Amino acid sequence: MPEGSNFRQPEGDFRWDGVELMAYKEEGSAPFKAITRQVLFARPELGCELRYFEMQPGGHSTLERHGHVHAVTIFRGRGLCLVGSEVREVAAPGLVYIPPMTWHQFRATAGEPFGFLCMVNAQRDKPQLPSEDELRQLRQNPAIAAFLDT
Amino acid sequence: MPEGSNFRQPEGDFRWDGVELMAYKEEGSAPFKAITRQVLFARPELGCELRYFEMQPGGHSTLERHGHVHAVTIFRGRGLCLVGSEVREVAAPGLVYIPPMTWHQFRATAGEPFGFLCMVNAQRDKPQLPSEDELRQLRQNPAIAAFLDT
Repeated sequence: MPEGSNFRQPEGDFRWDGVELMAYKEEGSAPFKAITRQVLFARPELGCELRYFEMQPGGHSTLERHGHVHAVTIFRGRGLCLVGSEVREVAAPGLVYIPPMTWHQFRATAGEPFGFLCMVNAQRDKPQLPSEDELRQLRQNPAIAAFLDT
Repeated sequence: MPEGSNFRQPEGDFRWDGVELMAYKEEGSAPFKAITRQVLFARPELGCELRYFEMQPGGHSTLERHGHVHAVTIFRGRGLCLVGSEVREVAAPGLVYIPPMTWHQFRATAGEPFGFLCMVNAQRDKPQLPSEDELRQLRQNPAIAAFLDT
């Protein structure tokens, strides 16, 4: 690797030279909207990966849970975040911890792009989607119902 | 842990509630100047830690190397960075990878605070400082000598 590739300069708005702008997930595999993924660091020498996810206004990540945890740093703009039974407005440079097996979702509700860095173990389990019954239970909390309907 | 503690809101300039503002290293253990450390995430569930380092204008990190690698995301402002034999100007949201056993240092040379997120393996070796002879060798590169004298 040439030494120059140790540096990835910004190219416009939260894009980096040599970092591919990817689909968030495979289309149709889960519900999501207007969100992209860039893998900033995924090195065999490191126990974790660092990804940057960005939503356009009105976009959202998948409502999901999994055994692995997320360490999230809001990097751009503001929006809403669900963790467990709590909905919070978050803004850069806020921090969010997603514990194991905890329902979570991010929503770009502020009319601006909303982006976050997500540190995650390189080895991890697959996310689970809520069943219809689990979704019904979640919606019994009015704050979560309002969040899901934004 | 109460659910509310899954969120760390920003409190002013790159400070977070519940995150301690720490000395960069123990005073006298290594050369450094006007730099602070905040550990944003250090969880037993994660293979890595995420730390935020911030230098005041004129400040710098320690010139050092180690077997573990750093995955760096510039989070605030701009400054200079040495990696191996290369000196580069870096700015938010640029990325820097520090390979194993590679001399590196950050310097806040732009008259503004300069801060970066550093992802690092939780288990890692201790940094090494350059010997006088190694420093002399590094200074034979004019770009490095100019960088060290800024």
